[in-house]
Amino acid sequence: MPRIAVDAMGGDFAPDEVVRGVAKVSLSSDIQMVLVGHADQIQGLLDAGEYDPELISVRHCSSAIGMAEDPRDALRAKKDASINVAARMVAAGEADAMVSAGNTGACVLAAAKHWKLLPGIRKAALASVFPRQTEYEGQDHLALLLDVGATIRCDAIELAQFGVMGSAYARTISKVPTPRVGLLNMGSEPNKGGEVLVAAHRILSSLPAIHFVGNVEGNDVATGRADVIVAEGILGNVTLKLLEGVAEVAWKLASHAAHDNWRWRLGMAMLSSGIERMRDLADFQTYGGAPILGFEHLWIKAHGRSRAPAIANAIKVAAKAVRDGIVPDMTEAVAKLQ
Amino acid sequence: MPRIAVDAMGGDFAPDEVVRGVAKVSLSSDIQMVLVGHADQIQGLLDAGEYDPELISVRHCSSAIGMAEDPRDALRAKKDASINVAARMVAAGEADAMVSAGNTGACVLAAAKHWKLLPGIRKAALASVFPRQTEYEGQDHLALLLDVGATIRCDAIELAQFGVMGSAYARTISKVPTPRVGLLNMGSEPNKGGEVLVAAHRILSSLPAIHFVGNVEGNDVATGRADVIVAEGILGNVTLKLLEGVAEVAWKLASHAAHDNWRWRLGMAMLSSGIERMRDLADFQTYGGAPILGFEHLWIKAHGRSRAPAIANAIKVAAKAVRDGIVPDMTEAVAKLQ
Repeated sequence: MPRIAVDAMGGDFAPDEVVRGVAKVSLSSDIQMVLVGHADQIQGLLDAGEYDPELISVRHCSSAIGMAEDPRDALRAKKDASINVAARMVAAGEADAMVSAGNTGACVLAAAKHWKLLPGIRKAALASVFPRQTEYEGQDHLALLLDVGATIRCDAIELAQFGVMGSAYARTISKVPTPRVGLLNMGSEPNKGGEVLVAAHRILSSLPAIHFVGNVEGNDVATGRADVIVAEGILGNVTLKLLEGVAEVAWKLASHAAHDNWRWRLGMAMLSSGIERMRDLADFQTYGGAPILGFEHLWIKAHGRSRAPAIANAIKVAAKAVRDGIVPDMTEAVAKLQ
Repeated sequence: MPRIAVDAMGGDFAPDEVVRGVAKVSLSSDIQMVLVGHADQIQGLLDAGEYDPELISVRHCSSAIGMAEDPRDALRAKKDASINVAARMVAAGEADAMVSAGNTGACVLAAAKHWKLLPGIRKAALASVFPRQTEYEGQDHLALLLDVGATIRCDAIELAQFGVMGSAYARTISKVPTPRVGLLNMGSEPNKGGEVLVAAHRILSSLPAIHFVGNVEGNDVATGRADVIVAEGILGNVTLKLLEGVAEVAWKLASHAAHDNWRWRLGMAMLSSGIERMRDLADFQTYGGAPILGFEHLWIKAHGRSRAPAIANAIKVAAKAVRDGIVPDMTEAVAKLQ
């Protein structure tokens, strides 16, 4: 039974929604969960609803890192913050993986502080799942983009390692046996994008363990061309937020137009089931968060705005990843890279 | 009267659609145009329709650079290619600006080969216009993103120069007196994005001549937060193509869904006027192309898939830019930067 440490104090709606998410999972699974945070507060929230006490334990700690705090300063000043305590528990083997909806910078830095990188890995990556069009029957409608912000700039070897780790993660989580890996670039030819990307293309092409489909351009991101898209942090971060931003603007434009015009309003009503479907697809709540890849343990970073269902999904993803042996898989894939 | 050199042989539908675009402009303006390319072929196309011979002249040249040719090799091997000849005409003062729908790489390299950079400018930028949401009454519904592919990586001073040039161009073309300039980054705080972007933020903040609104993130691109968005080539290129790609995927998804389901079909019909409007907005044909900024002359790069109306728009934009003195404006703005 996987044991997941859950940062009860991280997220815009913590601890309420985090505790509710954990309680929910306890009623429908065999996942062991440790809620890390203010014990009295957590117990009060648990008691206000239904939960399975066999599956939930609480680890008290006195402080928490706010969503807007400077991650570096806060991690240093608050040794007893829930995020530090939970990460240390995982490092000590008291839990198998970690879930937090807290401050993203603090999550990445806490993982780096308390956990070891996999042998040979130079930098960890934050990988985000996003919905896109599919190209063939059975292709997952979600793809993986990494890095989206754990790094800023990367060299060729770091990018190649992201490809290997992302491929291992996608293989396990999405059950696609050979995920297509693409390198985000400004042209499709192997000689595009400058020294670093040309070298990354060469290294990725030479790895028999992954299915490298070459460079992918901005217009390929929302298609099914690649299941795993590799980019340095700044490029991946802008790409991910642009996808989120465009979906939001399109939704607002459509709603606004519908408000002004009866034909549009009627049209939108006709389309509502489909629009809801697209909205669901674009809704991070259903994904279960973004894994931080590259460490000896798995950290699932849930969205800061996560409510109970999103937290529950993140915990289920973490448990599945532990069950399916994602870290050993990744370790093996990375070892072959040397 | 502005004189525009038009590369008759550049673009997926050249020379037919280029010549048709030029003929069209000649019937409704006083813009002088020189069609550069195969004279017999051009004359034949002109004679097949209506045009004003007072406004159109033809400069013969024997070769052309294909859309898929390697730009560097082709430019070197084909001294007499239309793109080389037209750029030389502008350099020699025989025309005031240039329009081409040809090979983008060849356009950027030909400008660099035949034209001088503005005093102090280190790198030219390809700037693309794109539609976005507006935030206030009277804001242009088009914003400018640069660089989208003339460069790969840039330093802080180069990025700041893009901000100044983009601001001058937007001021003239969109008639917004003080365009809001943003720096594309992975966080809104001034200390985000690593050394180069932190330094670029500092320089841009210190320039009184531009209205710098700070860092913009991916999710701000489609909003009205900035009128001019500054990025190094690889980041700008991926951003632009992602915007194009998402619009295309959304359109396909909607059409496909409508095909399958009568309620959706009816809904789409109800929405059709609005969808057409959005489609128009997303249609590069109506923009008039992307300026190459940083040289002593202006080069409007029309989309490779341009048909006659897009060519006509590109010519009108080039003529307006010449009339409004965009290059002197930019020179002055850049001189203040020193």
